[in-house]
Amino acid sequence: MFGWTGKLLRINLSTKNVKVESIPENVLQDYIGGRGLGVKLYYDSVAPDIDPLSEENPLIFTVGPLTGTAPMSGRHVAVSKSPLTGTILDSNSGGEWGKEMKYAGYDAIIVEGKAENPVYIRINNEKVEFESAEALWGKDVEYTTRKLERFGSVATIGAAGEKGVLYAAIMNDLTHALGRGGLGTVMGSKNLKAIVIKGSNKPPIAAPNRYKDAMMDMVKLLEASPPINKGLRVFGTAMLYDIVNYLDVMPTNNFNDVHYNGGEQLSGDYIVEHYELRHEGCWGCPIKCKKWDAKRNIELPEYETIWAFGPNIENGDYEKIVNANIRCNRNGLDTITTGATIAMWRELKGENYLEQVDEIITHEELKLGSMRIAKKYNAVEKRTDIKGLELPGYDPRGLYGQALSYATSNRGGCHLRAYMVAPEIIGKPKLIHRLSPEGKAGLVVIFQNLNAAIDSLILCKFTGFAMTEVEYAKLLSGATGVEYRAEDVLRVGERIYNLERLFNVQAGIGGNEDTLPEKTFAGSHALSRDIFNEMLEQYYEFREWKNGVPTEEKLKKLGIN
Amino acid sequence: MFGWTGKLLRINLSTKNVKVESIPENVLQDYIGGRGLGVKLYYDSVAPDIDPLSEENPLIFTVGPLTGTAPMSGRHVAVSKSPLTGTILDSNSGGEWGKEMKYAGYDAIIVEGKAENPVYIRINNEKVEFESAEALWGKDVEYTTRKLERFGSVATIGAAGEKGVLYAAIMNDLTHALGRGGLGTVMGSKNLKAIVIKGSNKPPIAAPNRYKDAMMDMVKLLEASPPINKGLRVFGTAMLYDIVNYLDVMPTNNFNDVHYNGGEQLSGDYIVEHYELRHEGCWGCPIKCKKWDAKRNIELPEYETIWAFGPNIENGDYEKIVNANIRCNRNGLDTITTGATIAMWRELKGENYLEQVDEIITHEELKLGSMRIAKKYNAVEKRTDIKGLELPGYDPRGLYGQALSYATSNRGGCHLRAYMVAPEIIGKPKLIHRLSPEGKAGLVVIFQNLNAAIDSLILCKFTGFAMTEVEYAKLLSGATGVEYRAEDVLRVGERIYNLERLFNVQAGIGGNEDTLPEKTFAGSHALSRDIFNEMLEQYYEFREWKNGVPTEEKLKKLGIN
Repeated sequence: MFGWTGKLLRINLSTKNVKVESIPENVLQDYIGGRGLGVKLYYDSVAPDIDPLSEENPLIFTVGPLTGTAPMSGRHVAVSKSPLTGTILDSNSGGEWGKEMKYAGYDAIIVEGKAENPVYIRINNEKVEFESAEALWGKDVEYTTRKLERFGSVATIGAAGEKGVLYAAIMNDLTHALGRGGLGTVMGSKNLKAIVIKGSNKPPIAAPNRYKDAMMDMVKLLEASPPINKGLRVFGTAMLYDIVNYLDVMPTNNFNDVHYNGGEQLSGDYIVEHYELRHEGCWGCPIKCKKWDAKRNIELPEYETIWAFGPNIENGDYEKIVNANIRCNRNGLDTITTGATIAMWRELKGENYLEQVDEIITHEELKLGSMRIAKKYNAVEKRTDIKGLELPGYDPRGLYGQALSYATSNRGGCHLRAYMVAPEIIGKPKLIHRLSPEGKAGLVVIFQNLNAAIDSLILCKFTGFAMTEVEYAKLLSGATGVEYRAEDVLRVGERIYNLERLFNVQAGIGGNEDTLPEKTFAGSHALSRDIFNEMLEQYYEFREWKNGVPTEEKLKKLGIN
Repeated sequence: MFGWTGKLLRINLSTKNVKVESIPENVLQDYIGGRGLGVKLYYDSVAPDIDPLSEENPLIFTVGPLTGTAPMSGRHVAVSKSPLTGTILDSNSGGEWGKEMKYAGYDAIIVEGKAENPVYIRINNEKVEFESAEALWGKDVEYTTRKLERFGSVATIGAAGEKGVLYAAIMNDLTHALGRGGLGTVMGSKNLKAIVIKGSNKPPIAAPNRYKDAMMDMVKLLEASPPINKGLRVFGTAMLYDIVNYLDVMPTNNFNDVHYNGGEQLSGDYIVEHYELRHEGCWGCPIKCKKWDAKRNIELPEYETIWAFGPNIENGDYEKIVNANIRCNRNGLDTITTGATIAMWRELKGENYLEQVDEIITHEELKLGSMRIAKKYNAVEKRTDIKGLELPGYDPRGLYGQALSYATSNRGGCHLRAYMVAPEIIGKPKLIHRLSPEGKAGLVVIFQNLNAAIDSLILCKFTGFAMTEVEYAKLLSGATGVEYRAEDVLRVGERIYNLERLFNVQAGIGGNEDTLPEKTFAGSHALSRDIFNEMLEQYYEFREWKNGVPTEEKLKKLGIN
């Protein structure tokens, strides 16, 4: 009889204690892995008012039951409290690191405490070692990665995480990022430079034939999906540029406009035509949506980064974006918040930091992100964030579902919670009317729940262009031997979403923060505040929340105390 | 320059006049073909209060721009006013007949008037002949088909259409049916026994490379789709039986229950295990969802028929259903209405006509369908129809979206208008919560519009398990050379839906008829009337209808005068 088991590696940086614990099976069944498991473990570990940069704040890494076996499962998650937003925050990255962690035998790694001096952690299967990082402190992501990669896959912070920039990323495998919300800052506050991990044991699968069958379905669906095989595979995420701009949902000049006229170099077509592309992918990915300039051997920016350093600061020079992206990756900076912060500063001060990204790290104001700058300069009407996390490159004014998803996101202005970009822009799994409030509340809830589940399996979100909960349930059942139906998968997502919300409410972040930047309610493309409020009300009703707070009954139904 | 042209063949049975007209390009662009074109031509031809069985009532056959070239495009539509419901009614059938009509060069055939004596029409490309059907009158579908098939593909009525049974079908290619709403009755009232058609010219395609590319996408998506290639392909529509019963949405005993316990023989698994299946398909279909008993060379029933002659009359004997299905096909009876009428009679009178299907045709009460029987016996609380058309085998009490779609259907209790079976049961294109009203109004509108468009291309509705409006738009653009985006496809569907509704309102069938049978609002599984009314109100709002009537502004926006 296969039992669904999971191991937790608890590492204390203060005491240098290392302990392996087993994760109760009911926790795995209720939260799966990845985001769900991370959120559950984090919720159970801390008081909600914890200071994110205190020694007591743990940083939790997780993988899931599919990690390292299914296609597009080469991912891991980190969860902690965000120094940028004060909310619970999960972040999700591809590459090889997650697969190594899974193969090393762990479903979760909890990093507690704070090292006295800079260290890095070296994990080789059951062996866990602390090493001095004195020689690496101050060194960039590329240097650190090259130095440590012979020991395994490297997740490291750059200067941003060391210096307390509030939106520092944790970079793994050189160019993959746990990007948003400052988990690199949390890592830096612990004097932890890097975690290098190597695993060599393929995880067992409960029902191998069923799992293989589910994977066959998955591969066929991925290969058949036009947005995947004709879009992402060819152009990468830059495929989005033209359609987003065409639909007038391209936030431009710090969200003062919704369309950018100077972006001839910014489209997927341009890149394909002007660069010799090398296609790179995460572990186990048949798509390889990451594009590199093969001649110069440098990574090219994702759509979000193109937007952040392009339209949002009225820059049409692609090479400047390529350069800013590399500087962010080397320093370990979240490109979305970096771009949004530059845009805010540019609007306030007229200065453009696009070509001085390195200087942000030691800039006493820029390092705090756009919300704190806007507040400091009494310019809250210029804000483009929600709960402190800056909106990415899909304008809520022209995407009602995405707008509602932004506003109700538990980690602030994130496009990936309901990822309404798929139904409202790409038309997958089904085109819906982007400029209507009708039915949006229900769909946003369902898509938020679904994506919380995908983040817990973990699979790449782009699988959602081709697959639905039906296929996810089949994969999960095959891998674990526990029977999940499509509804069960959504239910897990719902549980996660409610637990995150509960944490935030207890941390003082409730329904009042479920709103959009003032800018989006004004001007010629304004979203009607009445329509927004109506959608929000319906959303709460559908969630069985009161004023943004989960009701006792709801929590009980979900098995949350 | 490719112009999108369409030819209309006008046949007058009274005068024996035959005329070929061209269809204005703007009509084709606005209504595409199939259902849309049929509805538009019909609307422009008659006064809404026309008697469906009068000489003046035309019967219109249509095909679409994809017919006979794309996979799963071997379909045709007929439109007229239904003698059963009094609404405008389109019906849709597979097989070879539509492909022959398209290859004969026609996009529409309007049959007007009434023959003095029974005739059949023989069409061979541009040649149209009237032939006596005296020798065929009274003969069944099989006899007639075998007799005429050397001239081409045969669409014929059986005894039901001759004798004025109000739910007579037009059968083509032996076992395919324009089933619902009594278009066979309309045909019979014209003394028209059959239309035999042969075409030999493949229609031109505006942008062949683009069309081929779109078809490649389509084929890949179909082959990758689990409900298609592991469901329909293997089990046919009988694949639905187990899941529908499991979810307690199996209308049982004339809708007095929602679950049937005696159906061990009725599932897809049973059929696969106990019969040697031969897989049959419509023209150009790679799926072949029609199952035949290879040994006896007889067709096996579809899910709807299994339900109608199974759970709905508490019969678990599969062979009795097989037999009743064959009797219906030979007589040209709609199996859903036949089964529902038997169920009504059984509840009222205790008599079961399952094994006497032939007798229905001359039974003065049974031939009128269940609504008229219920009214006659003062038992309107026992009704299971909407607007006179009986509900099929998906219980609205456990499928809120399907419930709303039933109620607002322009042809009465039809499951294929929004076909919420796909999202609410199969989870395609996306699973939605079947027991929640949230968002249903918006989705039902979108799916009703989408399906009106699919019926106009025409493609098989099961393509919707794998494809979305994005792919439909691409096919349509490739075939016609007119640029359609996904939104445009939905817009055409919206136009059709509004025009149908306008006709019904003018015929005296308005918002008051947008409701469900009383039975579904009562009993232990009752659907809440408040919830239903709330969904309906939201639906009207989203449609921009007042009390079920399209507003002037809405019609104007859609280009309907």
